[in-house]
Amino acid sequence: MKKISVFDSTLRDGAQAENITFTVEDKLNIVKSLDQLGVDYIEAGNPGSNPKDLEFFARVKELELKNAKLVAFGSTRRRDIPVEEDKNVQALLTADTGAVAIFGKSWDMHVTEIIKTTLEQNLEMITDTVSFFVSKGKTVFFDAEHFFDGYKENREYALKTLAAAEKAGAACLVLCDTNGGCFPDEISRIVADAVSKTNVPVGIHCHDDVGCAVANTITAVEAGAEQIQGTYIGYGERCGNANLSAIIPSLQLKLGYACIPDDSMERLTKTARYIADISNMILPNSLPYVGKSAFAHKGGMHVDGVTKKPRSFEHIPPEAVGNRRNVLLSEVSGKAALLSKLELLGDAVSKDSPEAGSLVELVKELEYNGYQFEAATASLELFALKHLHKFKPFFEVTDFKVIGERSEEGAHNRDYAMIKIKVGDRFEITADEGDGPVHALDIALRKAVGKFYPSIEKIRLVDYKVRVIEPRDATAAQVRVFIETTDGDSTWTTVSVSSDVINASLNAVADSVEYKLLMDSKK
Amino acid sequence: MKKISVFDSTLRDGAQAENITFTVEDKLNIVKSLDQLGVDYIEAGNPGSNPKDLEFFARVKELELKNAKLVAFGSTRRRDIPVEEDKNVQALLTADTGAVAIFGKSWDMHVTEIIKTTLEQNLEMITDTVSFFVSKGKTVFFDAEHFFDGYKENREYALKTLAAAEKAGAACLVLCDTNGGCFPDEISRIVADAVSKTNVPVGIHCHDDVGCAVANTITAVEAGAEQIQGTYIGYGERCGNANLSAIIPSLQLKLGYACIPDDSMERLTKTARYIADISNMILPNSLPYVGKSAFAHKGGMHVDGVTKKPRSFEHIPPEAVGNRRNVLLSEVSGKAALLSKLELLGDAVSKDSPEAGSLVELVKELEYNGYQFEAATASLELFALKHLHKFKPFFEVTDFKVIGERSEEGAHNRDYAMIKIKVGDRFEITADEGDGPVHALDIALRKAVGKFYPSIEKIRLVDYKVRVIEPRDATAAQVRVFIETTDGDSTWTTVSVSSDVINASLNAVADSVEYKLLMDSKK
Repeated sequence: MKKISVFDSTLRDGAQAENITFTVEDKLNIVKSLDQLGVDYIEAGNPGSNPKDLEFFARVKELELKNAKLVAFGSTRRRDIPVEEDKNVQALLTADTGAVAIFGKSWDMHVTEIIKTTLEQNLEMITDTVSFFVSKGKTVFFDAEHFFDGYKENREYALKTLAAAEKAGAACLVLCDTNGGCFPDEISRIVADAVSKTNVPVGIHCHDDVGCAVANTITAVEAGAEQIQGTYIGYGERCGNANLSAIIPSLQLKLGYACIPDDSMERLTKTARYIADISNMILPNSLPYVGKSAFAHKGGMHVDGVTKKPRSFEHIPPEAVGNRRNVLLSEVSGKAALLSKLELLGDAVSKDSPEAGSLVELVKELEYNGYQFEAATASLELFALKHLHKFKPFFEVTDFKVIGERSEEGAHNRDYAMIKIKVGDRFEITADEGDGPVHALDIALRKAVGKFYPSIEKIRLVDYKVRVIEPRDATAAQVRVFIETTDGDSTWTTVSVSSDVINASLNAVADSVEYKLLMDSKK
Repeated sequence: MKKISVFDSTLRDGAQAENITFTVEDKLNIVKSLDQLGVDYIEAGNPGSNPKDLEFFARVKELELKNAKLVAFGSTRRRDIPVEEDKNVQALLTADTGAVAIFGKSWDMHVTEIIKTTLEQNLEMITDTVSFFVSKGKTVFFDAEHFFDGYKENREYALKTLAAAEKAGAACLVLCDTNGGCFPDEISRIVADAVSKTNVPVGIHCHDDVGCAVANTITAVEAGAEQIQGTYIGYGERCGNANLSAIIPSLQLKLGYACIPDDSMERLTKTARYIADISNMILPNSLPYVGKSAFAHKGGMHVDGVTKKPRSFEHIPPEAVGNRRNVLLSEVSGKAALLSKLELLGDAVSKDSPEAGSLVELVKELEYNGYQFEAATASLELFALKHLHKFKPFFEVTDFKVIGERSEEGAHNRDYAMIKIKVGDRFEITADEGDGPVHALDIALRKAVGKFYPSIEKIRLVDYKVRVIEPRDATAAQVRVFIETTDGDSTWTTVSVSSDVINASLNAVADSVEYKLLMDSKK
């Protein structure tokens, strides 16, 4: 299998996306994760542009990387300044990486109208800068910025910029669709031409402004490109960069190329979730291969089909990329899918019983009222058991009150919760404080329930999400709260809907405690 | 320009996406919006599958559509049942649409192993069903399900299914990449072959499981397909359908095809936002053409470039699709970008002044603490004016208290807010109640401020979003609250960050009221 070199720029091009800002710690964590996945190069920023990057390059040296090499990123020297005196060029050396990526202009319009120099001088800037870093012992990747737009308007000049970099010693000539406006047929034709005119490996760097970055990257590989540049989940300026988490499995599982070690393939999904977490972004469910819905089936015939033969509605087995099949509940799907979710119910309800039918109706009604059980199966199980009168509550919240206040003088800014619960004939009243009313209620509830059931001391919240369901009604709208809880061994999610965020949160917390007690009782 | 027929399936295939459920009212609104945009066909569901679709088809007749024709969707008759006796076939007639889309199997494996019939009988099912609807005067689109997978395993049989539908009178043969696993080069080759073997128009229907649905659709058009099927913003089962909002502008603005009326092109962006709103989904910022970030520039050199010459970093002018350029603030960008956001500041601060430098520092610090001003320029302006001592507050919140309670007996479940504000030397104390503490505080604050400034009675909240910033800290995490407000003429957004959702919400509401008063004072 032909090896394709994988070059990830999440920490550089990805950081230029709207809403993304990485701390030094975030960057180090992402480096570790990409290294473990097995990418070849990690482009991590420009030590000249900000002090955070300088600190990062100092600290990253302490990591022992198994697969990946770090790359610092910068531009060709400025016009009229000798390369040795260019501050940005010099700053790049402080990163002390084995490889550098140097971008230069390959579109004549950019040369004359944006950086305002001559076509000849731009070639010298490329030659000088690449030669300089080669002379310092660096592996140099030349990023030919706007290569495709340049090629379309002045093919001869665009190819000259590649020739200048090649002659100066560049190890790879990276063809960039910087504005992201190209289509696969153009990419195929232009990459093939560039490959035929040069003698070092060619790379490809696409942006997604016409929604073709993934297809363009794959097409470029088929036309001879040997390095793929992108960001792991497609973060990047404007519409983002080519999404490597979609490209790697297509090349490796379906098209016969080698990108990362075979035994890393099953890390693809968890790496995407991890990087999204660190970036504080929600991983879109619909992402190819690694999204939560990538192998989710909702239509009744699709559910029926995959049950009979997975490849009838799945282009690859989900396990091959560490993902899993997900059968969704909805008006469109049926009893079999619902019952398969209710693990604690066991075999108590058969598919053809009236109970199964009434459970489907119950779920439809709750979904109509804003519930979503696709992720929150713990709440679904509790609703089903209650509906079938197979559940005896472990405790009951009879009253609560929350008080939040702020006053000018004392900077007194704290929330308190009082809660009263009933277990059998016994009552327990307690109170606590927290950062916000939900936090205070969460602590107070666990304290009260813990008096009766010590095992709940082990549980802790992992995630807390609030979603306004009808945003046009603003603060009076319904909210849906998801709470993810763990006891160290397993993790479960509960959901509640209310017009009051506090009510919804308390219900979801109470459900999660109840679910833990229910699981313990089944052991 | 060659006309390409646009077929939208948001209401059918889109409704099979995780998290999407449409009410009848939602469906009618989406039909109106797509009709106004100028698509040719709207596939709207299956009246046999659920009563909601039946009601929809009855009510949709009352709309006077200018451009679009409605299409009902169903499958070929079942094996061993005459077409006149097949319930699903008959149900399709109740939709009373001029056109129907009939899907049938074109992959031999599906015929023998999923619907378990013979290859010959499947051809008869196609013939019978298409003929039946043609005899009823319908325009019939034949959806050749799994056409590409089928073609790759048994080309001859896949083409036979097309021939059967063509002979029976189908108006268009739609080649479906149902599992979404194909790449552009395969699509190009197979579509060209199918076009050469048939005499009616060929359509294309792609899914995004390898991230190539947009590229595949465009490639199919270049290979001869005349109808594009997709969903307007790509909603659909698993990874979604081909995203028409990305395909239409590429075909029409860049590749010389006609999809929708030219004067509708500028509706592309607002149609995407509208459909996302109705679907209760957040429109991803990075969507090609129509996303909020599609023309957003953050890197300093990019900002510099587009200022000099837009096409240096924009593949089309954003106005061509009704979107706009957006210069982002961040550590990477500079003073010019920041000052361009501060409209109310006017020319009071020049780019080279020390004030400009200190404003950049202020923004960096606030962003470090979790603020994001990219959307919330109203809060940014208030922070800047306060920082420069150019702002005299219109009012001050000196104290507040919220009380929320629930008790078993009375189903008493209500939240109250008491608030005290100061305007000059005067105080106003008031209270109100609401659905949740934030709602109660919002109402009470407006009531108190309205005593002094009646103009704020005109304002109302449009949107309210809560985002937990460090989800791993669960309920004790920081939250970021965005509030969008309108006074009928303009709309503005404020942001606040706190560990307490109530605090953050109150601050954002107070900022939005303050901003309205500030704008009024500048008139």
